Order: sequence, then C-alpha cells, then structure tokens
Amino acid sequence: MIRATTVFNDLVGRVADRGRSLMGTTAPRSVVQMCDTLLTGKGEATGLALARAIFDRYDGMDWAAKHDFFTMLRDRFGVDRERTETALRHWQEGDETALRDLHIASEPRSQELIRRLNRAPGGTRRLVAMRNDLLHLMGEDSALALLDADFRHLFGSWFNRGFLELQRIDWQTPANVLEKIIQYEAVHEISGWDDLRRRVAAPDRRLYAFFHPALGDDPLIFVEVALTAGIPGDIGAILAADRQMTDPARAQTAVFYSISNCQTGLRGISFGNFLIKQVVEELGREWPNLTTFVTLSPVPGLRKWALAHRDDLPTYLADTVTAAEDGKRPITLSDLTAHYMLTARHSRGGATDPVARFHLGNGARLERINRDADASANGQKASWGVMVNYLYDLDTIERNHEAYSGQGEIIAAPPVRRLLKTR
Amino acid sequence: MIRATTVFNDLVGRVADRGRSLMGTTAPRSVVQMCDTLLTGKGEATGLALARAIFDRYDGMDWAAKHDFFTMLRDRFGVDRERTETALRHWQEGDETALRDLHIASEPRSQELIRRLNRAPGGTRRLVAMRNDLLHLMGEDSALALLDADFRHLFGSWFNRGFLELQRIDWQTPANVLEKIIQYEAVHEISGWDDLRRRVAAPDRRLYAFFHPALGDDPLIFVEVALTAGIPGDIGAILAADRQMTDPARAQTAVFYSISNCQTGLRGISFGNFLIKQVVEELGREWPNLTTFVTLSPVPGLRKWALAHRDDLPTYLADTVTAAEDGKRPITLSDLTAHYMLTARHSRGGATDPVARFHLGNGARLERINRDADASANGQKASWGVMVNYLYDLDTIERNHEAYSGQGEIIAAPPVRRLLKTR
Amino acid sequence: MIRATTVFNDLVGRVADRGRSLMGTTAPRSVVQMCDTLLTGKGEATGLALARAIFDRYDGMDWAAKHDFFTMLRDRFGVDRERTETALRHWQEGDETALRDLHIASEPRSQELIRRLNRAPGGTRRLVAMRNDLLHLMGEDSALALLDADFRHLFGSWFNRGFLELQRIDWQTPANVLEKIIQYEAVHEISGWDDLRRRVAAPDRRLYAFFHPALGDDPLIFVEVALTAGIPGDIGAILAADRQMTDPARAQTAVFYSISNCQTGLRGISFGNFLIKQVVEELGREWPNLTTFVTLSPVPGLRKWALAHRDDLPTYLADTVTAAEDGKRPITLSDLTAHYMLTARHSRGGATDPVARFHLGNGARLERINRDADASANGQKASWGVMVNYLYDLDTIERNHEAYSGQGEIIAAPPVRRLLKTR
Amino acid sequence: MIRATTVFNDLVGRVADRGRSLMGTTAPRSVVQMCDTLLTGKGEATGLALARAIFDRYDGMDWAAKHDFFTMLRDRFGVDRERTETALRHWQEGDETALRDLHIASEPRSQELIRRLNRAPGGTRRLVAMRNDLLHLMGEDSALALLDADFRHLFGSWFNRGFLELQRIDWQTPANVLEKIIQYEAVHEISGWDDLRRRVAAPDRRLYAFFHPALGDDPLIFVEVALTAGIPGDIGAILAADRQMTDPARAQTAVFYSISNCQTGLRGISFGNFLIKQVVEELGREWPNLTTFVTLSPVPGLRKWALAHRDDLPTYLADTVTAAEDGKRPITLSDLTAHYMLTARHSRGGATDPVARFHLGNGARLERINRDADASANGQKASWGVMVNYLYDLDTIERNHEAYSGQGEIIAAPPVRRLLKTR
Repeated sequence: MIRATTVFNDLVGRVADRGRSLMGTTAPRSVVQMCDTLLTGKGEATGLALARAIFDRYDGMDWAAKHDFFTMLRDRFGVDRERTETALRHWQEGDETALRDLHIASEPRSQELIRRLNRAPGGTRRLVAMRNDLLHLMGEDSALALLDADFRHLFGSWFNRGFLELQRIDWQTPANVLEKIIQYEAVHEISGWDDLRRRVAAPDRRLYAFFHPALGDDPLIFVEVALTAGIPGDIGAILAADRQMTDPARAQTAVFYSISNCQTGLRGISFGNFLIKQVVEELGREWPNLTTFVTLSPVPGLRKWALAHRDDLPTYLADTVTAAEDGKRPITLSDLTAHYMLTARHSRGGATDPVARFHLGNGARLERINRDADASANGQKASWGVMVNYLYDLDTIERNHEAYSGQGEIIAAPPVRRLLKTR
Repeated sequence: MIRATTVFNDLVGRVADRGRSLMGTTAPRSVVQMCDTLLTGKGEATGLALARAIFDRYDGMDWAAKHDFFTMLRDRFGVDRERTETALRHWQEGDETALRDLHIASEPRSQELIRRLNRAPGGTRRLVAMRNDLLHLMGEDSALALLDADFRHLFGSWFNRGFLELQRIDWQTPANVLEKIIQYEAVHEISGWDDLRRRVAAPDRRLYAFFHPALGDDPLIFVEVALTAGIPGDIGAILAADRQMTDPARAQTAVFYSISNCQTGLRGISFGNFLIKQVVEELGREWPNLTTFVTLSPVPGLRKWALAHRDDLPTYLADTVTAAEDGKRPITLSDLTAHYMLTARHSRGGATDPVARFHLGNGARLERINRDADASANGQKASWGVMVNYLYDLDTIERNHEAYSGQGEIIAAPPVRRLLKTR
Repeated sequence: MIRATTVFNDLVGRVADRGRSLMGTTAPRSVVQMCDTLLTGKGEATGLALARAIFDRYDGMDWAAKHDFFTMLRDRFGVDRERTETALRHWQEGDETALRDLHIASEPRSQELIRRLNRAPGGTRRLVAMRNDLLHLMGEDSALALLDADFRHLFGSWFNRGFLELQRIDWQTPANVLEKIIQYEAVHEISGWDDLRRRVAAPDRRLYAFFHPALGDDPLIFVEVALTAGIPGDIGAILAADRQMTDPARAQTAVFYSISNCQTGLRGISFGNFLIKQVVEELGREWPNLTTFVTLSPVPGLRKWALAHRDDLPTYLADTVTAAEDGKRPITLSDLTAHYMLTARHSRGGATDPVARFHLGNGARLERINRDADASANGQKASWGVMVNYLYDLDTIERNHEAYSGQGEIIAAPPVRRLLKTR
Repeated sequence: MIRATTVFNDLVGRVADRGRSLMGTTAPRSVVQMCDTLLTGKGEATGLALARAIFDRYDGMDWAAKHDFFTMLRDRFGVDRERTETALRHWQEGDETALRDLHIASEPRSQELIRRLNRAPGGTRRLVAMRNDLLHLMGEDSALALLDADFRHLFGSWFNRGFLELQRIDWQTPANVLEKIIQYEAVHEISGWDDLRRRVAAPDRRLYAFFHPALGDDPLIFVEVALTAGIPGDIGAILAADRQMTDPARAQTAVFYSISNCQTGLRGISFGNFLIKQVVEELGREWPNLTTFVTLSPVPGLRKWALAHRDDLPTYLADTVTAAEDGKRPITLSDLTAHYMLTARHSRGGATDPVARFHLGNGARLERINRDADASANGQKASWGVMVNYLYDLDTIERNHEAYSGQGEIIAAPPVRRLLKTR
C-alpha cells in the first residue's frame, strides 16, 4: 500500500527545477517575457520549467492581475495577421488548398501557448483551475470570451470521451476521492460520511464517475443511482437514512437521482450524456432484472417561469400558481408543470427548463410528474416541490433525440401529454 | 492477478453494439453517408456505434479503397467556405475579433470527424493505425498531406507531453509489453528473449518508455541505457552476451545506446527529447555516482555523403574514402567523420546527419568519434563502422540548444574540433 | 478501480457449494458428525463444503450451544490415548527417537480439525471470530483453556511475523479500512472522520498497521505516531483539532501515542513489539532528522495500586494520594508515580503496570513522568491524569531487554530514578 | 509501473541489519550459539538479525557442514526430556488434562527454532530452500527424517489451502513469473518462449497456479489446460505448434494435460487435488459449454511393471510385452495397460502407478487408454507411448473417492473394465 505513483511526477518537477535554475542566471522577468520565451521555444528543459514558473507566477496574482494576464494573453498572443494575410492571398489567387492553410495560419498563438503550459507537472490541472478563474472574470468582462474559446477548444479535444474512464465509487474507494464526492455533490447535498456510506455502500445504491488520466483521482462528473422496485416519486424516500433496502436482484428500476459536474473549469465540455448511457449499459449487464432506467429530476425553472407568465396562463393554472404561492399543493400543480414542460420554449429552441434540455437532448422522454416530491427548501423554492422522471429507453433514445433536436418535439409519455388537454 | 481492466472497455463496446443495432434497422449505407451522419451529430449512442462501424468498414478496405476514403475525407470534409467567407467579411469590415472567428470558421470539418471517431472503443489506437496507412499512401499521392495535417495537429495536441507517463521496463514487466519491445527495437535488433533479458534485467542495464493512457500497454518510444565506467566506443561490447557487469553503484557513465520510436502512425510527433532528459534526471537521482550522460549513436549519413562529395574533399580525406571502400579503417576515418559532422549542412540549416540533427537540436554536444565501433553489416554499410557519442550535460543543454538553433553552431568537444584542423 | 479480487474467493465458495450439494443427498447431520467426517477426511471437495457448513451451523448457535460445541471439541477431539501410549512404550523401551513420535502421537485431534476448518472460504477469519467467543466463554468456564491452547498454538504459527505486512494508513486508504481504524482505536477514541483525517492525513501524523493476507483488509494492530519538536507531556496537545503543525523535515521526535490491537480473537499473539521497532526504522529512514522515539503512554494501574497500598507508602506519598483524591494534582504525583513504576512488582516478576510491562519487555526505558497529561475522564480515573514516556533507543534496546527480562531491572532515565530518592 | 513493493521488505532487512550491528560488538559465534540465542529469545530486534545471520551462515556451508548443521538441530534442539517427564508424571498420576500438556511439553525445540527463523526477511523462502537440502541429505542419512518431520509439520500448517491464492497465468503475466513456469514444467518440457506463448496465450489454452503470500511470485504448483472438442488421445496434437485452434465458446472438454509441482522443498505437502477441483469450477463458470473435465496423463510405471511381471502375465499379454520391446505397438497394449491399472496393487494398498494413485485418490475415474499417445523418448521409455485419461466429474468424485480410499476399488469406465475380460 506504500505508493510510488508520485515518483515520476516528482521527477518531472525536478526537470522543471533544473530548468528553473538555468533560468535563474538571468534577471527576473515579467510574465509577458516568460510567455514569449515559452512560445518561441527555447530548449525543452527550460520549457517545462518556464511553464511551471508561469503557473506559479499566476497563482500569486490577485483578481486584477489575473484580469490583466488574460487580457495580455488574448491581445499579445492573438492571430498572426501577416501569416493569415499571406494564406488568404494564396487562396484568393485561386489555390483552394490554401483554405486549409488559412485555418492553420489563423490559429491564435494563445492556443500553442496553452499547449506548452500543459507540459508542466500537473499542467492540465492548473489549466483547468486557470479557466475557472477566466470564466469568473468573463462575468464582468465578456470580451475575455475570445480567449476562453481557446481553452474550450483545447479542453474539448483533450477531454474527448475516448480518453475518459468510467469507475465505480464505493466503500473500497480511497477516502480522498470520497471526500471530493461529498464536496462536489451539487444536487442533493451529502451531509457527511454516514450519508455518503448510504449512497455508495448500500447494496441498492451505486455511484459512477468519469475520470481523466491527467486529473488523477479528481472526478469529472458522477451520477448517483438507486435500484428500486418501481419508479419513485419522492426524493426524500430515496435519501432517507432509515429507508428499506431493495434486493438488487429483484429491483426492476434504476433511478438516476443526482448528476453532478465536478470541474467548473470544464464548463461547456459535456460528459453527462455519455455517462448516463454507459451506466445504463453497465447496470443492465450486471442486473438483467432491471427493465426501467429513469431519473428523478428537479424542475428548476418551474416557479420562476410560472410567476413570470401567470397572466398568460389559463385561469385554472393561474389559480394554481396563486395557491402554490400560498403554500398549497393542489393537484393541478401537475397540469401546470406539464404546461411548462411541453409548451414553454427556449429562445434558441427546445425546452426552456435547463434540466429538461439536458435529458430531452439526450433522447430521454418526460415520463412522469410528481407533486410533493421534494420537501427541501431548494425544491420548494424552485418548483413548489415538484419533480419529474425522465425515461432512458435505449431502443427509442435515438428516435427521441432526432425528433427533439430536429423538429423540437418534446417527447413525453401519454399520461403527461394528457395533462395538457385536461379541462 | 485476475484482471478486470477490460470490463468497462467491453461496456463501451456494448454501447456501440446497441447503437449499431439501432442503425441496423435502416438500409446499409455507404461509408460516406456514415461519416456525414457522424459529423452532423445524431444521438450519442449511435455516435459511438457509428464511429466503430466506420473503423470496421475501413479495416475491410484494400489500399485502393483506403486511398479513395482518405481523398473523400479531404474533399468532402474540407473547410466550410461560406462560414469562412462570412468571418472573413466581418474581419475585413474592421472587426478585429473576427480574426479568431476566422480560425474557428475555417477548421476543416475532417478535424471534428476525427475527434468523433476517437470516441469509439479503442478509437485512438485505430486512428493511429489509420494515419499509418495515410502516411504510406502519401508516398504516392502527396496531395493527401492536406488531410494528414489534421491527424498531425490532433495527435500533437492529444499526445502532449503532459499526458505521457514514463515507465521503467524490466523483468517484472508483463510479457505482452516485452514482446512489443522486441518488435519495436529499430536500431540494434533484439535477437530474442535471452537478449531482451540482458537488456532489461541486468543490474547495469535500463530500459525506459513513454506510454499514453489511450494506447494502454503499447509504448510510444523507448530508450535503452547501459551503466558503464567510462564512455564506450564500441556497441559490440555493450550488447555482448558474455560482457562483464558493472556495479551500478560504481558506474560513472550512463550510455543511451538505442532509441526507438514505436508508432509509425505518430511520425512527426516528437517525444525523444523529453524522454532522454527525464531519464537523465531519473538515473541521476537513483545513482548519484553517475556524472556523465552520453549516447553511443550511429552516423547513418556518413558513407553516402562521403561518396557523393569525394571530389570536393581534401586529398587525405578523399584517400580515406577510397581506403575505407577497400575495406581498410584508417585512423583518418575520424577526421573524415569530424569533417562530415562539423561542416556538412542540411538544406534547411543545421547538421545534415539525421541523428546529429536530433541530438544537437536537443542541446547535446558531439563528444567523441569512435572508429571500429559497429561491426554489424548495417554499421559497416552506413558509416564503415564509425559511431559517435553525444553528451547530455543538463547545465549546458540550454546554451547549446540556443547556439545550434539560433546560429546553427554545431557544438563539439575540443578534441573533435581539433580533428578538423589536422594536416 | 473495478475490482476482481473476490472472483476466486467466490469460486472457493462455489467449490464449497458443490460439495454441499453432494452432502445434501444424505440426511441432516449433527455438528458432531460433521466434525467427525471432516477429520476422517472424506474427499476434499466435501472437505471445503463441510468446513463451511460447520461454520454456518456454529454461527446459528446461541451461547449455550457454543459452550457445548467447544466442550465437545475439547472432549471428543482430544489426544489419541492409544497412539500416545504406544509411542510412550517405545520410548520407555529405550528408543530415544520415539520421544519425537510421542509429540506427534499426542497432538490433540482438535488441532487437525481446526486446520481443516481453515480451508473453508474465509476460514481464518471465521476461526478468529470463533476463538473470540471461546475466550468470552472461558471467563465462566476456565476448563475451556485446554481447547484454547490449540487455537493459540495454531494462530501463533499462522500469524508468525514473517507472514505479516506493514502498511501505512493514510487518506488514500480505502474507506472501509479507515472505518475499521475508527472502530478499533482503543486508547484515545477517534471521534469521527474529521478526527481520523487529522490523525492520518496531517503531514506530522502517521498511522501504520500490520495486516495478514488471510484477513484481507482487516488490520491486526496499528500504531499512531506524531512527529514533534520535543518530547510531549500532554496527550491533549497532540489530539487537539487546532494544534500547530510541525514540519516533518524539522521534527526531532516521533511519538507513539496510541497502539491498538484489533482482533480480540488473536489475544495472546503478540505483534506490538515488532510493529514499534519496524516503524522506528521506517520513520528513521524517511526522516533522518528524527533522533528520539518515545511513547506517550497511560499508567492504567497507578490509582488503583496507590489506593490499595496507601497505608504502606511514605507519609508524603500517602498524603499525595489523599490530595489527588481530593482533586488536587500536587507536584509529588510524579514521585508517587516513580515509586509505583520502579518499586511495585508483579506476582510473576517485572513491573506491575500492564503498559509498563509491555514497553519495558520490549527493551524501552521509562523516560519521563508527566502530570496533567490526560484531562479525559479515563485518564483522571486511572492515574489522576498522569502519563509517562517510554524511550525506544535501538542502540540500548537489547541491553535493556536483557536486564529487564533477566534480572527484572526496571530501566529508567536518571531524572526518574532521582524521584525515588527525593525526601 | 515503478514498484514500491520491496520498500518494506528492505525495511525488515534493515531492522535485521541494526540487530546485527548490535550483535557485532560480541565476538564471532558459532552457528550453534546463534541458534541457542535465537531460541532463548533475546530481544526481538536481534531476533530478526540472528535469524538472518543463521541463514547467511547456512548459505555458506558445503554439504558436509549442512549435514552437521541438520544433525545438530535434531540432536541439540530435540524434545525437552525433563518437561516431558513432568507432564507424563502428572498424567500418570491421574490428571487427564495433562495429556494435552504432554503434547505441548514434548514439542521438539527445533520447531520453535524454525518458527523464529521464519521471522527473518524472506524467511519462509529460505526455509523451503533449507528443507530442499535436507531432503537431499536424507537420501544418504535417513535418520534426518526426525528433523524433517518438523519442517513437514510446520509447512503443512503454513501452506494450508486457506492461505493459497489461485491465479491465472497468461501473456500479461510478468516475465519473471513466466520464466519460472518454463523452468518448473516437469511433465512436457516447454521449449522456449514461443512454446510458452502457445500454452498461455492461445484462446483455447489456460494455465493456473497456486501462490502463497510468503513466497511472492514463485508458484507452488500449476496446471496446464487445453480446451478441445472431444477427449484427446495424443499429447502431440495438443502441444503442436501448428495445431488448429478451438473456439473456447464451442469447446466441450477441458483437458488437464500437465501438472507440475514447483517447490521440491515442499514435497509431501499436497496441493494438486485442490488445484484441479478449483480450476474445474473456474472453467465451468467461465465456459458453461464445457461438459467434460479430463486429464491426459502418463502411465510412468507401466513398462517397468510389465517387464518385472512378464512371467506372471497371461500369454497374450506377455507376448504384448515382447512385441512392445521389439518396437511394435500392438492393439493389446491397451489390454496390458488395463491389466496394470486395474489389477496391480501398491504394497500400501491402492493402485501402484503413482499418477493413478494421485488422480484416483482425488476421486477421478480411469476413463480411457490411448495407444500411440506420446511419441517422446520419455513416453516411449516409460510406457511404450501409452497415455490415459482420468475423468473429473464433480458429481461422482465423492463417491469414487470413498470407494477407492475405503475399499481400494479402482474406478474405471466400462470400456476400460471390459478390456480386462477380453480373451
């Protein structure tokens, strides 16, 4: 159990150290100069050291300095105009193949800089942290989005699904990984180690995560699964400490009751779709008795939308909103939810509810609406306690996905559809 | 020792299978249609299946069909003209930020197609094999280079040094990995398992390799090292079955006597520089008694160059060539080699000898010239048995590298320099 | 991370199952018959199955039935009188070699029975649990000690130090192992996962355990270590959540502040001595700056002894006892403790304090007496808060051990010795 | 892949070193004195060191000195007469419980000495090597058997089946383990790495081994398996380099064609029975299509027996012997073999052929006799090329075993039985 895994990582560090000592002979340099040197590609030993030195310098910066740093990256390491114009000229002179050269010539130099930073010990991890900051700063300065496109492009390529590893997390998992799961759970908070144990070690509970080799034991995304008899309509029953166990060999339903992205620095790089489908396969193989794969999902946009559109709603639904705001949970909350899910549209097309957009986009079907499904403060505030189930049926996923993404059709089970027509 | 590592790989395969069964309902399609569908991004389950199906289709092709396939990829999945022209217009209308958009707009669609192929089970491995074929076909049809630029660009990003793992190969290494080492050794052939055992299991021998997670236990590159007392001038003494062992704790010299790239499909993606320097660090840490790190390298271009330039050489060197061709090995072979190494220049600058280009480019110094160093047929044919040592001194690597790549200066030890001035 | 370690364990189980199905054809048998059959050695397949069936039967017994079971084992599977008498006769007739035969002939048949039980899946673990019960029942029926001698003999042989593995427990350790550490800590309770994290993950804290292959990830014994500047005199300071960290590279002292045996079923099989000495070596190797290895140990017998012997003590010590009982902690508590440690003798020789017996027997020296060292209720009740340090100095351990075990000399540092002579 | 497994082993070594340095202060001692000291149990640190020092001293001995060493162990560390006589007296005075004490009292002191030697680094491995020598010397001096009984007793306990691990050996197995398989194969020699590869890496070949934790990656015993359509009658067809592969998913038969014990120092400790039955289970689970589990076994005693009993045989069998000696292979060789297998009896009961004794004792049945089954020189010499199949049928193993070990009945398939009655 004594581990040697970090031996070579240390070595990489030492290569960097050596490079640094070489660098030390020259006067202290600005981070701009360091980036220049890294990009123009002096020797590789210095390359590793330089990359690390830039990260270290960066880590010492305050927000204002980081903002300057990113702005510098964007402006100083932009596209090479001259090269671009040359390629452009060749193309316009009739060389069609120059169109591909144009792409190469117009690559922002910041991309190569990021690739070289990635060579440093722990480079990928530090770049993900760096982008996390960048996303934060973009909230104030949207012009940084130009630079973020580089990160996003490279991360999309590096975190290609072909490089991810699915792993089951259970009670034999090292504590440092489990601790991260507690921290990262974003949907239904894990209240401590006892709660965690219930979610990973009970025979009718599973937790699966995607990992990337360059991030080591830091997960990218994970999903929590409950094996149950039927489709559940209440998150409280799933999370309860004193619930009854289900024998997995007799369960018929696998419920995805929580999906959490772990790395905010990877925002916009999508893993959830792959994760759910692979876990469906894994569970189906292990427990052939499972016939139904559903989520138990929040409806985060329901209340906000309903309040905003109260005046446009049919009277009985407007009344439902009023009643719900008064603390009542009338049966027509289901009708209201169906109305929201099936008729409200996002400005860019598709469903307006963000969770719905994810699952419908994956090809799942809106299966059921559950009132009084979430007693938590969050659940009450977002949707008066309403939750829904999305069904993952591998045999219809493809068709659903096409109908949704092609014609914008929102696939829902007949009982949900019927709620639209009520009254 | 019973292994489960392939369980989830199988699963990915099964996800793909499921997708395939969905696909199966439609009529058989052409590989062109399949690529179209993959790129336009129907559902993800089908995505994995489609990618695999394209690989399978590809594997069944003969060379002519593969040539057609690559030509199709290049032409059909080229740059989106319209998008490019729009971005161009914006830029030319004065929007400087559109320059970055131009880059994005002009990305050949083949790049995204390759990324999606990579999602398939074993995708990276299959793409490397595919490029291997592509490089072969480029020998006949250089216009395929346009497509190869995509592979090269993506592989350069995916096989970034930050994603590589250094591992020592020894006698505890699984046989399937060792078998690959035997196959891949390109410089001094490994004649079988006994020879291999001498190279990895003797206390004064080491073998290190770089691996990439997506290629599993298939190495990218490896280097063989001998720990010796002094700098050796004879490869035969290093490879001999009955040589005397050196106590590693008393060795002063580490000799890199063979470096082999393993994946022809990764040609042009450079790892050797990183590998040598990291092994220098590793060995220096483990055996502080080591003071000298050198190669024992072939001079593959010597004879060919000398024969071609015999008439231009000083008389005593021209006579040396004649004598060497007559089977003699006069002392002036060293002078001739020094002349070749220090004065011959490549058309694109730098040394003309390909091995010299690699080591000098890394910042090594030409340390010594050895006659009668390689009795093998190859060695006699390429360089009349001459070999050289390049010295890796971490304290001067940076400076050497700059002098070489900046001013084209070929760094050599004084005794080698002096050979130039003789007579 | 998907594990296959249990695959073959399952198989062993299945071999046993198959055997069981064979057995099933005969009528249900008594556990006595089953033991008879196991010992007379029908086929091996049934052997595994029988062993498991006996364990299963045993697990279903109440205490009375277990008492009967053990009595049966002792009486029915005792020594073979006839064989013994034959061997005895040979010996008495002058065959000296028959003395060794006498040993073999007189082996209680229960020993071979236990060996055959051990072949069952998880047999060792179940035997350890069985002896745990046996020890419990010996409290009421000391005649079971005859049977316990078999368990103790076999466990002593099976848990030979040569079969144990030292492992470090840290924050990368699987949660199920860490959970056991929390449960097993017997000296200074671990209050939860946060407390555990402080003890295993802080840079100046270590935890080492011995494992045995047949018990898997269930530890046998573990020791907790704090790296500190000087010798500590207060357990509270070591356990405090908000304590100051020590840089391990600057620490001079390693403090063994808690040693816990984990398996009550292995009582009497001693591991602590080996564990401490190996950890001393390990720490000394990793941190050459460490110069002092001490314990911070309770004095569990102090108060009880002092109350029992108050009348025999010198007046100032008798007064000390009275004051201590009144809640005072006079400086003379140290004198009293020195008196107890250095003069009180166990009926079988050596120190009377059980913790002192362990450490002095290992060759450690009583180094220091600390008042107000343990504010816990336990510490107050057992020793009015007094704790002591024992010093492990590898260079004198051997001599100390001989002096203690040979002449019963209690080795203590001069300042402790001087406390005896005070007043 | 950089390994840390030896870190703590080194440590144990260092504990021993330290102990040795303590010992070094005294004058050099005889190995007798060292054993005395080890047994009387000075401090544990010295204990490890002493044990190792005794091993080192032993390793330097020639055969004569080893013989003296073993004789010394037997005589000096025999049974404690006095203790034995005391226990005997108690028993004879009527204390029945003293019978168990008698066993304890009469344990040869050599047993405890061996247990303490086992604590040294690599102690178990060195003890197995020591017994290997002892067995060799027993060939000349049978009186050493008294000492060997200690080794055998302790090894029997330590190598209890409950402590063994079954592992599959394949092409992912480390080369150092595979190399041992090549060395240990005792039945059908492995001619090199290519031959090995065929036996472990072909889809229709398997190799399983038992390992013990204290012997690391050195196997105890292994069995080679071929998956075939029907029951094979020719070992050459199984070993041929150019044989046709069988799809394991369509195979109906698993053939155990070679079983090799690896550790001569463990002679008399039986593992083969457990190994075969567990592999039957493992294969049956993995390939439910397998219906038949047989061996293809040599008949090592046939020719020798037939030549010795030629005069007692029926004429047609005596003629068969003559013909066979003349290089012919008449059909009646099968009759002769049946006669040998079914009628020849060992002096201690059961079959006389050693391989038959093993398999019949396991409960297997003699299934078929194959002429011209082994063209090797060995096979011709031992049995004129005859081999046999033993059938392992889990459903009858128990019954067969009882009939064989109880009534000495040799279980054979009807066609084999019928050969007896022919003519």
